[in-house]
Amino acid sequence: MIKDLAAASDGPVTVAGWVETVRDQKKVQFVVLRDETGAVQLVNPRNVDAEGVVIADEPATTISGLSQGSFVTATGELKHDERVKLGGIEIKLSSLTVATAAIPETPIAGDSGIDKRMDWRFLDLREPKNNLIFRIQTTFEHALREYWVSNDFIEIHTPKLMASPSESRAELFEVEYFDRTAYLSQSPQFFKQMAQSAGFGKIFEIGPAFRADPSFTSRHATEFTSVDTELSWIDSHEDVMTLHENLIVAGFTAVKEKHGEQIKELFDVEVVVPSTPFPRIPLAEAKRIVAERGYEVPRHDDDMDPEGERQISAYVKEEFGHEFVFLTDYASSIRPFYHMRHADDASLTNSYDLIFNGVEISTGAQREHRVEILEEQAREKGLEPEELDFYLDFFRYGVPPHGGFGMGLARVLMLMLHLSNLRETTYLFRGPTRLLP
Amino acid sequence: MIKDLAAASDGPVTVAGWVETVRDQKKVQFVVLRDETGAVQLVNPRNVDAEGVVIADEPATTISGLSQGSFVTATGELKHDERVKLGGIEIKLSSLTVATAAIPETPIAGDSGIDKRMDWRFLDLREPKNNLIFRIQTTFEHALREYWVSNDFIEIHTPKLMASPSESRAELFEVEYFDRTAYLSQSPQFFKQMAQSAGFGKIFEIGPAFRADPSFTSRHATEFTSVDTELSWIDSHEDVMTLHENLIVAGFTAVKEKHGEQIKELFDVEVVVPSTPFPRIPLAEAKRIVAERGYEVPRHDDDMDPEGERQISAYVKEEFGHEFVFLTDYASSIRPFYHMRHADDASLTNSYDLIFNGVEISTGAQREHRVEILEEQAREKGLEPEELDFYLDFFRYGVPPHGGFGMGLARVLMLMLHLSNLRETTYLFRGPTRLLP
Repeated sequence: MIKDLAAASDGPVTVAGWVETVRDQKKVQFVVLRDETGAVQLVNPRNVDAEGVVIADEPATTISGLSQGSFVTATGELKHDERVKLGGIEIKLSSLTVATAAIPETPIAGDSGIDKRMDWRFLDLREPKNNLIFRIQTTFEHALREYWVSNDFIEIHTPKLMASPSESRAELFEVEYFDRTAYLSQSPQFFKQMAQSAGFGKIFEIGPAFRADPSFTSRHATEFTSVDTELSWIDSHEDVMTLHENLIVAGFTAVKEKHGEQIKELFDVEVVVPSTPFPRIPLAEAKRIVAERGYEVPRHDDDMDPEGERQISAYVKEEFGHEFVFLTDYASSIRPFYHMRHADDASLTNSYDLIFNGVEISTGAQREHRVEILEEQAREKGLEPEELDFYLDFFRYGVPPHGGFGMGLARVLMLMLHLSNLRETTYLFRGPTRLLP
Repeated sequence: MIKDLAAASDGPVTVAGWVETVRDQKKVQFVVLRDETGAVQLVNPRNVDAEGVVIADEPATTISGLSQGSFVTATGELKHDERVKLGGIEIKLSSLTVATAAIPETPIAGDSGIDKRMDWRFLDLREPKNNLIFRIQTTFEHALREYWVSNDFIEIHTPKLMASPSESRAELFEVEYFDRTAYLSQSPQFFKQMAQSAGFGKIFEIGPAFRADPSFTSRHATEFTSVDTELSWIDSHEDVMTLHENLIVAGFTAVKEKHGEQIKELFDVEVVVPSTPFPRIPLAEAKRIVAERGYEVPRHDDDMDPEGERQISAYVKEEFGHEFVFLTDYASSIRPFYHMRHADDASLTNSYDLIFNGVEISTGAQREHRVEILEEQAREKGLEPEELDFYLDFFRYGVPPHGGFGMGLARVLMLMLHLSNLRETTYLFRGPTRLLP
């Protein structure tokens, strides 16, 4: 790998990657070769004949014909030389073999718009910044799984094909399923809860979720990767928040350790491992704080809005120096039927949203596990009890008190790296008008 | 957790779980309480009044009303006593609180058929054997990911919503996607390959795949969890098989270490960590070997059939004492267009199937990366080049030689545990007539 060259001693080496640039000069040719770990300069001084005329020999002829993006294997002599700007090393070529020649025109450039870049995502992802994003994602996810596995959570893969909606009739994709209709899972909610009734105790899943959301914002996608976990025998949503904090800390610690320097270099962002406990603010209080800062949330329901989330985040950053805040105790009116309500005030739920750098990344809650109350709440929200019957059965046959959260993976990455669009941190974005590539 | 009680000293404890059995006798009550880690006996000697008549006090009354499957919290005195069959411990109850009472009738029993059990999967999964299956799966997957991550593979989440089929027009689910039609991904094939063109080098994904397969066999599902990996700069499918072996060994080593004893106890199966290299047999030779054993594969094409796979597996077990075998060099006629063909014999591909205990669990191959040949092979298979255009672009702009495999997770578990039905090792099975729960 190219990253290993700096530590290697001078001598013969073979590297492989794609051509980033070619400078085909009269006396010497330069190629910048990149692989997923870095870039290196290849140099080929041209040979001249007795009269001083340049000879069309190899690899000179191949280099002259090289198009940007072609994948090649290069063999030559590694030489450390402080004068070489690119890492202080270069490779004096002895041979160069083209694995695949790229067609010469390059459809995107550094200043291409996001949609154009998404059209050519496979080229866009060759950018070192974009490659790094998915290495960070890998590290982050793995750290979460390490935490779960070492704490005896079971990994589950819930079905994405369902007989009924999991969240609501709105934003639902329909699938032709033999002679009937199936629906794409909007969340693993029901099946995470089923695991509690099944006595699994603690579970996790990282997988796709689907929302037929027709909006074109920078934060919504029709398909996204959802980070989900659920655990039994909790006393309240406080236990879920504690787990949530621990997972975030595990993920951020691993990312900072493995990629902190590169993130600083390529994104100019200092990754901060958050301290625990994260600040917790009941939603009603958060709205008062935001109002005191001069922002009245322009909504008729009890919810926050994006600007309100930015404001409370700014407040928490100023007051507590923290990038995260749990907004707790959302109103029952704006939460799903399966959120447990306060024992002494049914207008509030044992739930929270986690806000990171001004944007909501997750919703968590204690779930209502008493089937009579659950049925009542479902009816109140206008859901059809028949469609929910299979779900209600989980509770009829016994289930412990439990709770959990779902978190958008691409959102965490977007906010961690101070990016403004989910498309940047999604491998292949899906939106109302985007199914390609 | 109940598993921790054996090592705890006698004294006050609190445990939580579900009621497995109740024996409500005149002088003493017994409850077997289970959680995800084990089972323990709770005992409650009944109190009598001065006349020797049993008093209806607590927790006696609660115990008398307990239904099987109810989730409860129990507090009492732990006592080690060798005479107690269940682990040599019992808890003398001081209090018992019901979290959720289960409805009394139990819809499934030990001898219920598989379809009935699937109807009540959440109860079925309370069986210790079934709980263990998903702990094994967790360990297996995590060991694979440990291998990938420590070898610098990038984890990707490819979209499951596609504009065109990824494998074939057959067995394809259609999704109403706003004003058009989308398809559910049959495999992450195209997008794994895209990562190679994007210079990711080495990638992996564990995620759902969908096949509108109308068959009702014990080995097919309409939705399954696919284990996928792809890597660049390979010389042939041999490099893919080496990676494949290493992953299988990592997975089996972890499973044997963590669950070997329990698997022996509950499934009567000795997990064997396979030695490397796994035997490799070209398909044509495998068919000759099987014929010599008296089985002529009754197919007109060049493929194996399930009985042929069992036969070659039996041969390999007898000859090499190995549970795995790579069948290599499948005919081009029965392989997808994207498999690379032999340089000296276009009728054969650089591909393999991995057979484990008589059943195919995986297909791997070197991919064709030369776009002219790839286009030609697609046309030859009757595919429409326009639909593939976005995919062919990955190759037009340069891609290194690469290959990979896809493996069915539930199949590996099924064969590891000597089970005969995929439904046993799938959290929630999906088939042509099954979308519930």
